[in-house]
Amino acid sequence: MDEKSVGIIETKYFTCCEPPQTLVLKSGEKLGPITQAYETYGQLNDDKSNAILVFHALTGDAHAAGFHADAKRPGWWDEMIGPGKAFDTNKYFVISINVLGSCKGTTGPASIDPKTGKPYGLSFPMITIEDMVVTQKILIDHLGIKKLLAVAGGSMGGLSALKWAVLYPDSICSVITIATNHRHTAQQIALHEVCRQAIMSDPDWQSGDYYGKTIPARGLALSRMIGHITYMSEKSMDEKFGRKLIGKEKVGYDFSHDFEVENYLKYRGDSFVQRFDANSYLYLTKALDYFDLAEEGDLTKAFQKVKANFLVITFTSDWLYPAYQAKEFVRALKANDIDVSYIEINTSYGHDAFLVETEGQSRLISHFLTRICHEQKN
Amino acid sequence: MDEKSVGIIETKYFTCCEPPQTLVLKSGEKLGPITQAYETYGQLNDDKSNAILVFHALTGDAHAAGFHADAKRPGWWDEMIGPGKAFDTNKYFVISINVLGSCKGTTGPASIDPKTGKPYGLSFPMITIEDMVVTQKILIDHLGIKKLLAVAGGSMGGLSALKWAVLYPDSICSVITIATNHRHTAQQIALHEVCRQAIMSDPDWQSGDYYGKTIPARGLALSRMIGHITYMSEKSMDEKFGRKLIGKEKVGYDFSHDFEVENYLKYRGDSFVQRFDANSYLYLTKALDYFDLAEEGDLTKAFQKVKANFLVITFTSDWLYPAYQAKEFVRALKANDIDVSYIEINTSYGHDAFLVETEGQSRLISHFLTRICHEQKN
Repeated sequence: MDEKSVGIIETKYFTCCEPPQTLVLKSGEKLGPITQAYETYGQLNDDKSNAILVFHALTGDAHAAGFHADAKRPGWWDEMIGPGKAFDTNKYFVISINVLGSCKGTTGPASIDPKTGKPYGLSFPMITIEDMVVTQKILIDHLGIKKLLAVAGGSMGGLSALKWAVLYPDSICSVITIATNHRHTAQQIALHEVCRQAIMSDPDWQSGDYYGKTIPARGLALSRMIGHITYMSEKSMDEKFGRKLIGKEKVGYDFSHDFEVENYLKYRGDSFVQRFDANSYLYLTKALDYFDLAEEGDLTKAFQKVKANFLVITFTSDWLYPAYQAKEFVRALKANDIDVSYIEINTSYGHDAFLVETEGQSRLISHFLTRICHEQKN
Repeated sequence: MDEKSVGIIETKYFTCCEPPQTLVLKSGEKLGPITQAYETYGQLNDDKSNAILVFHALTGDAHAAGFHADAKRPGWWDEMIGPGKAFDTNKYFVISINVLGSCKGTTGPASIDPKTGKPYGLSFPMITIEDMVVTQKILIDHLGIKKLLAVAGGSMGGLSALKWAVLYPDSICSVITIATNHRHTAQQIALHEVCRQAIMSDPDWQSGDYYGKTIPARGLALSRMIGHITYMSEKSMDEKFGRKLIGKEKVGYDFSHDFEVENYLKYRGDSFVQRFDANSYLYLTKALDYFDLAEEGDLTKAFQKVKANFLVITFTSDWLYPAYQAKEFVRALKANDIDVSYIEINTSYGHDAFLVETEGQSRLISHFLTRICHEQKN
């Protein structure tokens, strides 16, 4: 562990919305109690003005930085969060929360329904990005933070950041979105639908009632394989794997694996099954597909009350969230005279660049946050 | 049926490689007898110099043009083949053959193995694009055609066309490839591998031994859904479906379908299951993934004996077979002083443009064939 690490970190838990104070979800259904798993890095200053909320992507968790005791691998954004890093914990108090509907400590379909004493499964209500954000706000209020210096996230986390800007304009100073868009498009919905069908076609899925039994491993692994293809660019996949064979002189002329890329996908699929709940995958992909900031018709109007400054980052080779999509919401922000810095980073890593191209992002985020801090003080 | 149709067409069958004259496949395994389903359109001229062989894509068949008796829909390339069309049947004799390993009349895994009296299933030997081409050459020889005026195909059909050019340089005058490449890349292999795993993960697949029982419909439908996402561009999908809901005012907040694109994929998946054999899908995708014209190391060298003229067509929005890949083999052809016309058609239809953007293609192909004919006569 180097001096740039936040060190050993423990996940904390916060429970709210105990009945009868249940949360009314966007669907109209009620949910409670809700537990949220979260972590914090750095120190909250006296006037509570240095807090930054970061959001994880689809299958992420609250563990964004540092190490859990006995763990060999750090949190998913460890290269970005720590002393002297982009989200500099010498200056900022960084909060990371596992989203509603996930399976990493926050209440989701795998959680025990207190009414039945059994996992919710498909009786868990459908959730939206808005529901995630509303839940996060309750936790931020609980921490006594009136105004966040920044909300920041990539991919699904970027949607949450945008929703924060719209829902709580007075509670944030700035927004950082990375590789995201303001509405899920037909191709994104289509890719998710195939993932959902893969899970729901697995006989072990049992209409979501598989807890304590055989999990729908084949379907979930398939979903993850599809996901990984979309996270890499065509170029980065060819550079990494090309047509490399797995320890063979020539192809085997049978249905076992021939190519390294096949083994890679299998490994990724199989290891995902160990760490993620299939029902959560269904709920979270639906939440993403439902997301449309312009659902009332007009994107520019949707941003009308927004006050935050924006840093919007995209990647040239990201075909899952192509740069042109972010440019659409950048235009709508600018139409509202909102201060937006838009940067497209040239990279071959595709959507994965969000987690891989940390150097370029760090520089941008670090400068942006310094400017925001400065403006806040003046 | 208009005057530009080739009219009512009957599929013909040709059987070769009867034991002991079995075909030795690239894998070293032997196969025979082999039946090939094929169709012809137009008249073969006296000196048999006007024959064009067209190749279908992954899930296509021999029925490229005209109508089968009682059928409402014409063949898959009917807009391109007929009197006055790109492949003008007033001038040319067009041949279309279902590939080896398919399930549309040509011998494949669903065919009866004469040794056992049962369908081959996974005892069917692995095949390659080369094996398909070698088998086609036997049929072309049988038809008494010494030299084809052209070989032409898109997608998988383009690979076959390239292989013909390399294997039988003295037997063809020209090559037309559309939306294809000279080797399957990591992303293409990855997408196929997910499709194969979807089929093989379906418990009904039963290691390929499902004939006369329940077919692996869920796995095969999933494969097709993935396929359809890759055939459209992100843009054409958004133009066609966007976030349109299926007869709903708002999303349903459950796991039934909300969006038109979800219904479209389901329809495509389900209808595919009615018309295609899951094992054939496995064999043909493997044949595609094995394809690498530069397998001996040097693409330029691979084209050394090629004599044909080339017309190479790609589409700007095709992300399954991106244009840059075709440019690679165009460069290697030019390094051999081969006459190549390369055209990238500007379209939003993605890989599907091969079947949809027929007007632009027709003009190019028609001119190209006229030139080839003229050069042959002089």
